[in-house]
Amino acid sequence: MPDFSYNGKIYYNPVEFAMDRIGGTWKMPILWRLQNGKVLRYSELKKSLKHVSDKMLASQLRELEADGFVERTVYPVVPPRTEYKLTPKGEKVIPVIIYIRNYGLELMAELGLGS
Amino acid sequence: MPDFSYNGKIYYNPVEFAMDRIGGTWKMPILWRLQNGKVLRYSELKKSLKHVSDKMLASQLRELEADGFVERTVYPVVPPRTEYKLTPKGEKVIPVIIYIRNYGLELMAELGLGS
Repeated sequence: MPDFSYNGKIYYNPVEFAMDRIGGTWKMPILWRLQNGKVLRYSELKKSLKHVSDKMLASQLRELEADGFVERTVYPVVPPRTEYKLTPKGEKVIPVIIYIRNYGLELMAELGLGS
Repeated sequence: MPDFSYNGKIYYNPVEFAMDRIGGTWKMPILWRLQNGKVLRYSELKKSLKHVSDKMLASQLRELEADGFVERTVYPVVPPRTEYKLTPKGEKVIPVIIYIRNYGLELMAELGLGS
């Protein structure tokens, strides 16, 4: 497959493209917490992802929204309430996460980690 | 699952652990090229991964070797010949790559990319 570009970045292969959409430290944990139609406020996500900074969480949510995985709704109350949920495209990432997660558990078990 | 550490780094979940072993721009492309028992010299890998720098390729191969995915053999000829192949643990990454690759192709198709 030849190189291709998307949003001004050059990609070498489909794996790299997928990882740029859903990889990194926080995107899969965010998507994971929203699976099965769960709706979470920003503050609930933040609390649940205990090590994430506000700056990082906001930027990752923005990218997930721009890529169509997450839908954001702002309720015009005082103070404004912001809620997140998965789009149908976002729900389709869950089996991918499960697959990678199971592989990670397998690697960890071989090393005697996390059991 | 509680946080855990490996080789001096703290991990939050199995997905992050797996991605630290096989993620990044080059590790999956390297493993992919060695699938099915293929043996490649360093120079062949370098040529095949057209955009990679020597420094990056060498560091990624070292990490893959340290994690037990790749086996390196140096033949004592002049000049020395260095060959790489997958270990059984390395061959087991291939289905994971195929899964992520197919998901990437799906995302790309939705966006009209790469076809």
